[in-house]
Amino acid sequence: MKRIANRVWRVARLPASGEPVSPELFQLGDEAVPEPGPGEFLVRTVCLAPGPAQRAYLLRAARTGVADALRPGDVMRGRGVGQVIRSRAEEFAEGDIVVASLGWQDYSLQKSGGGDFVFSTRRIAPDMRPLSLALGVLGQAGVTAYFGLLDAAAMKAGDSVLVSAAAGGVGSVAGQIARISGARRTVGLAGSAAKCDWLVRELGYDAAINYREAGLGQRLAEEFPDGIDVFFDNVGGEVLDAGLAHLAPQARILICGFIATQYQAQVAPGPSNYMNLLYRRATMRGYVWFDYWDRYAEAEARLTSWFRDGVLHNCEEVTAGLETMPDCLASLFEGRNRGIRICRVAPDPCT
Amino acid sequence: MKRIANRVWRVARLPASGEPVSPELFQLGDEAVPEPGPGEFLVRTVCLAPGPAQRAYLLRAARTGVADALRPGDVMRGRGVGQVIRSRAEEFAEGDIVVASLGWQDYSLQKSGGGDFVFSTRRIAPDMRPLSLALGVLGQAGVTAYFGLLDAAAMKAGDSVLVSAAAGGVGSVAGQIARISGARRTVGLAGSAAKCDWLVRELGYDAAINYREAGLGQRLAEEFPDGIDVFFDNVGGEVLDAGLAHLAPQARILICGFIATQYQAQVAPGPSNYMNLLYRRATMRGYVWFDYWDRYAEAEARLTSWFRDGVLHNCEEVTAGLETMPDCLASLFEGRNRGIRICRVAPDPCT
Repeated sequence: MKRIANRVWRVARLPASGEPVSPELFQLGDEAVPEPGPGEFLVRTVCLAPGPAQRAYLLRAARTGVADALRPGDVMRGRGVGQVIRSRAEEFAEGDIVVASLGWQDYSLQKSGGGDFVFSTRRIAPDMRPLSLALGVLGQAGVTAYFGLLDAAAMKAGDSVLVSAAAGGVGSVAGQIARISGARRTVGLAGSAAKCDWLVRELGYDAAINYREAGLGQRLAEEFPDGIDVFFDNVGGEVLDAGLAHLAPQARILICGFIATQYQAQVAPGPSNYMNLLYRRATMRGYVWFDYWDRYAEAEARLTSWFRDGVLHNCEEVTAGLETMPDCLASLFEGRNRGIRICRVAPDPCT
Repeated sequence: MKRIANRVWRVARLPASGEPVSPELFQLGDEAVPEPGPGEFLVRTVCLAPGPAQRAYLLRAARTGVADALRPGDVMRGRGVGQVIRSRAEEFAEGDIVVASLGWQDYSLQKSGGGDFVFSTRRIAPDMRPLSLALGVLGQAGVTAYFGLLDAAAMKAGDSVLVSAAAGGVGSVAGQIARISGARRTVGLAGSAAKCDWLVRELGYDAAINYREAGLGQRLAEEFPDGIDVFFDNVGGEVLDAGLAHLAPQARILICGFIATQYQAQVAPGPSNYMNLLYRRATMRGYVWFDYWDRYAEAEARLTSWFRDGVLHNCEEVTAGLETMPDCLASLFEGRNRGIRICRVAPDPCT
């Protein structure tokens, strides 16, 4: 292996309360490519997927329930696909393609048997291209949407489904799964006319509503004359409140995220329409995909089958260059992404 | 039957938005005791149970999901226990004791096969005294607490349980069922020191907190060091929000009522701590007992068995006199009742 540098993004400082993600929080430097010790193997990063959880790792009191908070000087944490290029671990051989917690860097050392739970290192089949699928439609975004919609929200054929942040990573898969699973109607909320158009034309949503335009309540009433059976909410705040005003009896509201308010310095007001939970005998449930970790393979198999059948579309948006990662992460909170955000760090290897 | 008057409470006018219940909304008059026609039978009211739903019937846009809104001039609606004193219906004989929608009056005509669903007329065993039990611990209050706690909130042995409005009709049974069902800890919220004392001494709560005193959050943290597994909430508003700040993982919050805010003219703010639903992967569910109507007999049998065994205590608070009904109803919204409010209209008959 020729001697090349390992570009590494480290945490420069933690954000103040309510401070948005910006490149100033990180520092990019050239470091030596590490040498694997016994039981270790070296992975070259192919692509990374920024996710809202990565913002949460930077909070002083991280509430992700999974990982320790990061501190200044730490390599920025993030999941990616990579290739094993040197191995002193029995279970992984050179050339293997893995999904792992690679971090925002070109090269990372992984330990055999290391990386528990959602940070575990998994070998994936190299024939499914692009490899970024394993981070998106067939990876965490897909699995999150799958269990959230079909298990936690118990969506059934014939349900009318509303998805917020429908053009976001999870939402763009959730709407497709609703369609595939026989939803009577699938409606997405997004923040621009272009995104709404994309939801209907590319992803098969029955309708899409630009929540930034006036009259959201009226539009929901039009789209759901019999009420919303399942509301897959990634947004919180006013969007959640608007949906709660149009529930069908026995509705299920999945709280999958609050991208609208989660990182505000001020505590956001709660949804005053929560009283409709009683009037509609509805259920609002907080959901985190890793509670379904032991059923990951089930979701992966179903998603892969749908993808091969051509009914589940890849909806990733790829940018190139490790140096863009801070902006990639920031884009998630600014509504600039469309679909699953992927950062390509190196070309898919020939295998 | 000697000729006597039937005292009847009719609706005088509907309350304005946010207007509290008061005697001015009703008018008491003497009317003739009606004569049953074919298929009808005459019931003499023994006791009545005021309930929050009766306030809801007076709203112009009634959202109870069960009954039509009342209009001025209508007999005030309410469930009670009575005795059949004259019958031209095959299924009911003179002397039968029934639970039915009797209304706020001494005598009412009931139809055989009439009164669907939660307004159905049911014959009850006359040996369980006082007969008011069938309106309280062994009736709607008990059944509401039973299915709410054990089914909708899925309480299991070992759970730590919080009940709000714990000295209210449903709450005073819910806490007892939690204790009987093996709760690790049952804590009640009530609005006075006297009520808190009653909860612990009489009903077997492990602890009780006066929510009107400062430091509710601190007290909840002390009582639930490992968090709340089940929160049976009858209150809403700030009390709900306080509970949401102390959830255990996988917690279940039952929205059984919002006595604190339901009839305010202004829309109350939502619970800003709803975000903990995600962090704790918790479920908040709106619950109305009549969704379990077809399993009523199951609850009744279990409650009766516990009552006979002496572990479930009658916690009714009886006042006498049909003329007190408006005040009885108002008391529910002013925190003046302790336990299940019963209005005795006539003595339990000898059978």
